[in-house]
Amino acid sequence: MSAQKQNNTIFVGKKPVMSYVMACLTLFQNGTPDITIKARGRAISKAVDAAQIITKRFVPGVTVKSVDIATELVKNLESGATNSVSSMEIHLCK
Amino acid sequence: MSAQKQNNTIFVGKKPVMSYVMACLTLFQNGTPDITIKARGRAISKAVDAAQIITKRFVPGVTVKSVDIATELVKNLESGATNSVSSMEIHLCK
Repeated sequence: MSAQKQNNTIFVGKKPVMSYVMACLTLFQNGTPDITIKARGRAISKAVDAAQIITKRFVPGVTVKSVDIATELVKNLESGATNSVSSMEIHLCK
Repeated sequence: MSAQKQNNTIFVGKKPVMSYVMACLTLFQNGTPDITIKARGRAISKAVDAAQIITKRFVPGVTVKSVDIATELVKNLESGATNSVSSMEIHLCK
């Protein structure tokens, strides 16, 4: 998982928090009104950090519209078993 | 931080996820209709795991009513400096 952009969605993975903050700032400066920050498993807390840094420090007009949590089934490529992983989506809007 | 119960609130900390799941189940079985799961920093992803395990596996009637994210100022007792920590509240209801 890394900072991919697809339909205004930022996927949070193993990079430092500020990478995702910068990715969001770039999208907002390009005129995107809504951004979704998505994360799975342990990256969830990093996604919350990124959302808080964006709304509190960098872009004053941006608010957290909604936060959704869900479970995703992930297939382990080595063993072939499917595992449940928690996922989270944070919707930011200007 | 540990599994304290106060006004139907479960604080998620360093214990295994199932401790918090069991704490929630106990509250629900005692007739509590609403439970808040609260976590800070890295425990946030564990709180999401606990909420998903409760709603998907153990208590079928329970749904996630809302999820809130915020920033808390935490004072470092050694250095006296204040740090910002992300926090999350998951509201479950029957």
